Amino acid sequence: MSLSLDSYIPELVRDKISPKGYETLAKVKKFVEEECIPADEVYFKQLSNDPTKRWTEVPPIIEDLKAKARKLGLWNMFLAGYKDGPGFTNLEYGLMAQFLGRSHVAPEATNTNAPDTGNMELFAKYANEEQRAKWLVPLLNGEIRSAFLMTEKGISSSNALNISLKAEKTSQGREIVLNGTKWFASGAGDPRTSVWLVMAKTTPESENPYKRHSVIVIDAKKALKTGNAKIIRPLHVFGFDDAPHGHCEVQFNNLKVPFDLLDKEGEGFTLIQSRLGPASNREIFGKLFITKELFINDVAERRIELERIKLLVLEAALKIDLVGSKKAKKEISIAKIDAPRTVGKIIDWAIQVYGAEGVSQDTPLTKLFMSARMLRIADGPDEAHLNQLGKAEAKKSKDINELYSKIYAKTKRLSKI
Amino acid sequence: MSLSLDSYIPELVRDKISPKGYETLAKVKKFVEEECIPADEVYFKQLSNDPTKRWTEVPPIIEDLKAKARKLGLWNMFLAGYKDGPGFTNLEYGLMAQFLGRSHVAPEATNTNAPDTGNMELFAKYANEEQRAKWLVPLLNGEIRSAFLMTEKGISSSNALNISLKAEKTSQGREIVLNGTKWFASGAGDPRTSVWLVMAKTTPESENPYKRHSVIVIDAKKALKTGNAKIIRPLHVFGFDDAPHGHCEVQFNNLKVPFDLLDKEGEGFTLIQSRLGPASNREIFGKLFITKELFINDVAERRIELERIKLLVLEAALKIDLVGSKKAKKEISIAKIDAPRTVGKIIDWAIQVYGAEGVSQDTPLTKLFMSARMLRIADGPDEAHLNQLGKAEAKKSKDINELYSKIYAKTKRLSKI
Amino acid sequence: MSLSLDSYIPELVRDKISPKGYETLAKVKKFVEEECIPADEVYFKQLSNDPTKRWTEVPPIIEDLKAKARKLGLWNMFLAGYKDGPGFTNLEYGLMAQFLGRSHVAPEATNTNAPDTGNMELFAKYANEEQRAKWLVPLLNGEIRSAFLMTEKGISSSNALNISLKAEKTSQGREIVLNGTKWFASGAGDPRTSVWLVMAKTTPESENPYKRHSVIVIDAKKALKTGNAKIIRPLHVFGFDDAPHGHCEVQFNNLKVPFDLLDKEGEGFTLIQSRLGPASNREIFGKLFITKELFINDVAERRIELERIKLLVLEAALKIDLVGSKKAKKEISIAKIDAPRTVGKIIDWAIQVYGAEGVSQDTPLTKLFMSARMLRIADGPDEAHLNQLGKAEAKKSKDINELYSKIYAKTKRLSKI
Amino acid sequence: MSLSLDSYIPELVRDKISPKGYETLAKVKKFVEEECIPADEVYFKQLSNDPTKRWTEVPPIIEDLKAKARKLGLWNMFLAGYKDGPGFTNLEYGLMAQFLGRSHVAPEATNTNAPDTGNMELFAKYANEEQRAKWLVPLLNGEIRSAFLMTEKGISSSNALNISLKAEKTSQGREIVLNGTKWFASGAGDPRTSVWLVMAKTTPESENPYKRHSVIVIDAKKALKTGNAKIIRPLHVFGFDDAPHGHCEVQFNNLKVPFDLLDKEGEGFTLIQSRLGPASNREIFGKLFITKELFINDVAERRIELERIKLLVLEAALKIDLVGSKKAKKEISIAKIDAPRTVGKIIDWAIQVYGAEGVSQDTPLTKLFMSARMLRIADGPDEAHLNQLGKAEAKKSKDINELYSKIYAKTKRLSKI
Repeated sequence: MSLSLDSYIPELVRDKISPKGYETLAKVKKFVEEECIPADEVYFKQLSNDPTKRWTEVPPIIEDLKAKARKLGLWNMFLAGYKDGPGFTNLEYGLMAQFLGRSHVAPEATNTNAPDTGNMELFAKYANEEQRAKWLVPLLNGEIRSAFLMTEKGISSSNALNISLKAEKTSQGREIVLNGTKWFASGAGDPRTSVWLVMAKTTPESENPYKRHSVIVIDAKKALKTGNAKIIRPLHVFGFDDAPHGHCEVQFNNLKVPFDLLDKEGEGFTLIQSRLGPASNREIFGKLFITKELFINDVAERRIELERIKLLVLEAALKIDLVGSKKAKKEISIAKIDAPRTVGKIIDWAIQVYGAEGVSQDTPLTKLFMSARMLRIADGPDEAHLNQLGKAEAKKSKDINELYSKIYAKTKRLSKI
Repeated sequence: MSLSLDSYIPELVRDKISPKGYETLAKVKKFVEEECIPADEVYFKQLSNDPTKRWTEVPPIIEDLKAKARKLGLWNMFLAGYKDGPGFTNLEYGLMAQFLGRSHVAPEATNTNAPDTGNMELFAKYANEEQRAKWLVPLLNGEIRSAFLMTEKGISSSNALNISLKAEKTSQGREIVLNGTKWFASGAGDPRTSVWLVMAKTTPESENPYKRHSVIVIDAKKALKTGNAKIIRPLHVFGFDDAPHGHCEVQFNNLKVPFDLLDKEGEGFTLIQSRLGPASNREIFGKLFITKELFINDVAERRIELERIKLLVLEAALKIDLVGSKKAKKEISIAKIDAPRTVGKIIDWAIQVYGAEGVSQDTPLTKLFMSARMLRIADGPDEAHLNQLGKAEAKKSKDINELYSKIYAKTKRLSKI
Repeated sequence: MSLSLDSYIPELVRDKISPKGYETLAKVKKFVEEECIPADEVYFKQLSNDPTKRWTEVPPIIEDLKAKARKLGLWNMFLAGYKDGPGFTNLEYGLMAQFLGRSHVAPEATNTNAPDTGNMELFAKYANEEQRAKWLVPLLNGEIRSAFLMTEKGISSSNALNISLKAEKTSQGREIVLNGTKWFASGAGDPRTSVWLVMAKTTPESENPYKRHSVIVIDAKKALKTGNAKIIRPLHVFGFDDAPHGHCEVQFNNLKVPFDLLDKEGEGFTLIQSRLGPASNREIFGKLFITKELFINDVAERRIELERIKLLVLEAALKIDLVGSKKAKKEISIAKIDAPRTVGKIIDWAIQVYGAEGVSQDTPLTKLFMSARMLRIADGPDEAHLNQLGKAEAKKSKDINELYSKIYAKTKRLSKI
Repeated sequence: MSLSLDSYIPELVRDKISPKGYETLAKVKKFVEEECIPADEVYFKQLSNDPTKRWTEVPPIIEDLKAKARKLGLWNMFLAGYKDGPGFTNLEYGLMAQFLGRSHVAPEATNTNAPDTGNMELFAKYANEEQRAKWLVPLLNGEIRSAFLMTEKGISSSNALNISLKAEKTSQGREIVLNGTKWFASGAGDPRTSVWLVMAKTTPESENPYKRHSVIVIDAKKALKTGNAKIIRPLHVFGFDDAPHGHCEVQFNNLKVPFDLLDKEGEGFTLIQSRLGPASNREIFGKLFITKELFINDVAERRIELERIKLLVLEAALKIDLVGSKKAKKEISIAKIDAPRTVGKIIDWAIQVYGAEGVSQDTPLTKLFMSARMLRIADGPDEAHLNQLGKAEAKKSKDINELYSKIYAKTKRLSKI
């Protein structure tokens, strides 16, 4: 028996859920538990290990699940506040997401998977009739998939102002020519992906820096056929390629496409803001971090951590040299516990400094992270070392108690004087 | 201008506040900001520094505030769900407490101060008519104060089962004789405290260990007059005596009082549960902590922390010996940052192990904590040392960049082979 | 220019390094910086992406590096205290390891890579003449590689007492028959691996549970040829297969091998102790963790973390429902910062509970970890959200200052009365 | 029996201790354990509770201990590298400090107590013959005590550049007139304090801001007699007055003293640097913290912490309203664990922002800290709540296991298709 639905609903929101919302929530829970979680392992088995097929064949179980979900009315629940959506609130969807998040396949099975959710919201809000018919409708039906191409390498990707992909209108203004590279384009690897939303600098001449970018709507399959757009490679995230979805590097080499924008020219920044939420206006860090007070302090903390680890390890090494490893038990335990976790913490920080690049195969950071993490288990887990060290420490208690008995006796004598 | 009331109310609860609740909330905010916070400093000035007067005279400003609060209807808001209360919910009171907690005098000014709140709740729930008239009514009127005597030294105070204060009924069962000591009796130092609720072992013969205790209602002023009950001393908490309220040690030496219980004999445990909430059923730790897995691990972590601090300090000392303190800047900074905060963390843990005793003047822990905490400021604040160390580290970046330029060049050459 | 060697040597150990040690340390630093780090990227490029070739072809650059290292005398530095070694101390090797650890290829290039280091130490300490000649000598020469097969699935691998691989001697005692499965056998995937050290239960009849295991020396290539030993698959660690080295699952199905033990029968436990250090004597956790005090507390902390995240997310969702996402900026920022890092922390804990299984592809934990980690970057890095939220908070300071000006004025008036 | 001396000495430093150092270390350990720790309680008992006598009478036990220590050669061990000292190294003294730090009285008993240690070092380094004879010799003999008056209220005290105490030379330059206030002058409350070192702005006209200050040597007792120097009050640190030592506020009102400087005029900054170590060159924070990136982030983190605590508390309050406190056990536990520790953490941060003022009685922060800290114990310790909550969570495991049995069964069925 699974836990009751009510145990997942905080008291504070209970009266804010509509009867339909509650009923659907119960269905979501049941669907995830009975259909999706059992399908997760099957999905990964169906996913090919062949480096090419991984990106051309979608595990068939997903379509079965989509059919079931749609029949149950578990479809597009994310689209709150739009007439195109099924009419739930964000709050209700937030509660459903508790369950959807438990299964790898559940979001796609219910057409509530990133990045399509964000893209559908954009289309619902900004698309013209033609765009709605061509892209939003099949997306809402789960027939095609989409990708948003924003991030560019070496710049702080989350600040749209930095985005520099060139998009020059042809003389008549009916077409536009793209040159440059995007990366971490999530979903761009999927064989079903039919539409790209590409953030590009279409209007560099605008005085207002927030009015220089537009979001271009591109027919992905056509573009790839020309050979002027190429998916270079999937980026890995901690070693995972996330196939068939993928986080891809996409290159544009004189790609000519119709001048088809989402919303008006120069409105790219506003669209991005509404898609990504409030975080998209920061300055670059990474390259220049040395001048930033926050990082200066972080760097100092890292130095402290490194120095103390180094000394603990060397103390253990010296002790082994002098008395052998048996008698250096305490020192070895201390080094084995503290070194991998400290190193792991430092690498995690470094990943954060590097941003997307940090989690990809383009730096060795994820490999280093994995090695340090593994050491917390491989060489006897932290907990085993801690337990052993703690017990050795606790054995001193007899001596300490004796010492303090003497001390108290003396205190008593002194107090009488 | 102060911040708007609405900014303090989470969206999730907004529709759960009654109009009266909202109106009172606004009044509480205004009262606290305009009357109570300005009075805090005055209150402490009016509090005598004389070791005796501190406990016999209450700062007069408190009665002015009480009169104002009562007029505004800001009175007993904590008493939710009882006919004796003003009719707010716990949720509404929870929101009011945001403001009341900002001022030292606000809770007492609105008759919502501990420990009287908990005691009034007990009376409201369990008192007979006589007890209600004699104690609850004046407590609700803010005319008298009360104390709950539960904790005993050297045992885990939060487990009522451990409580051992002897209370023997006289032959006719009309009176009861108390022998033993209670401590950390909050409010027992206040000159206005008129009633004690004393948790005592009245029925040791009961087979059920949860039915051996009762809560005895004692007229505090009468008891003190007999000389058989004595307030030995106020316990300090981090050096503060919290006068005139106080956390007191109270000694009973053949104190004979009427057999007047709150609820029935043997119900002490149940009453305590309802007063303290769910935490009161734990086993002792402290004395026997060495056998507990949780503490074993904690002890190991402390050992690691101590060893690394020791090595960092000795590295700095040796460096000073060898090259003088100017050139040992980095090592000194590291030791100065890491030693006091590590020591502070260890002492904080030790306080937790010792419980109430740990925060009192009966162990040196609070003095040690204060010294360590002071060092994080006195000798140049952590932040200054961190900033300096970080800047020194950052200066290495030029060399590191040069090294990596060479490395990349070589990688390129190797890749071509 | 790289940083000076001296800046890597703590003052406390400077006088404990021999002239030869210091000279070699300088060579190690130079070799790592000039030869190994530049080769890292080349190594991974040379490593085939073909699922089979990854495990049959070793990147050729490694042999170039080995030749160079050996010429420089940078070889087997780990082997401290044995006549077979080059005569450094553990302390000196500890300092060298600072540099070796910076490059993926450096340990193998200098024949100081795990798990061969530990295996060579075992051979150096316990091998008979024949074993030394056959395995230790080529290992020390870097001609072959080795694997230690200890861990078994579903049991707490770090407690050798739990190890249950069956190894029955044939009637004459000249041979031994193995049945069962080992996993996380590091190095077992390498095409050069020629010898396995297998921890097995050879003597279940022994009364002393610490005398039931032995370490069997097996010719790996021969064993694989019989078909009675099979490498089932490489385990992944955070998605990495670590080819060509590998952490493998190895199955024995009536594998008959010569009765060739390292040290005597029944001494397996002692050998393991000396190989793994002091951590190998713990009880299982994982399966039964619910009864352990330490985990009970951890579980409680996780519950607290989950509840608070849930409420923060729902507060943001409701606010979006009511006032739109622009005005819910603060609530969205809070949820975006706190959710992924909290979830990441919880998953990291879960990995630790599951041990080796937790980092492998047999649980979804590493995938979940990666998703949560990515979110701390993908959706606007934590730092950007924090900065924005902090600035919004700081804007309140004007109102707060005004409020406190009024408060101080009133305090002054009250103090005069 | 106490723990062996050797267990306190890291392997890394063992060969760096001279025979005399080792012997003295043993004496220090014995002296602290047998004489000083037992005397600590006696010292505090001898210290008067009378608000005046606390500052005029020194507990007599201290002179007994000083006599004993001196006889044992345990005297001035801190003074490393000066001919006036006993000839230990900083490293040896660092090891001795491990023991001295265990007892409140040990540093003073061995004449190694702050702030006299720092002051003696300054005299040893910079004093002229007259100053040496008059102040250094009796300080080294433990006959008098000293104070260093540096910190000034409302400015960042650790940056000497901010120091503004006026000190105007009289026309002939033989005397100097001081006007202004110093605070946190440690040791200034002690009846034995005979000399003040006062950092003052003597040379505001200097172009180099680092050459505007000097350290004036003042006969403290004479100065106080004139009435033009006054000790206004002892500052408290977490409620402690640290009598008879004290951290005092000292006011100068046209105090005329001889023009007697330590080192030359304008050298104050250099002297301070050498006394305080590398931290003394930071900019103010506190007042202006809103503009600092580091604090902006900290403020954001505090906001997150406050919001989540608020929601957890309100969730518990609402649950109590709806189903009573018994059924709201889980929610109450969560709030009781998480609220006090979060609040404590926030206050600790606030103290750090305020610096010295933050630990004194001039802000309510220490009182607030104490209340929050007490709550982690008073209302059932964190650990008891955690244990109970964890056990309740663990009870769900049966349901979860059943759910996953079903899930695995389904996965198996699906895999076969």
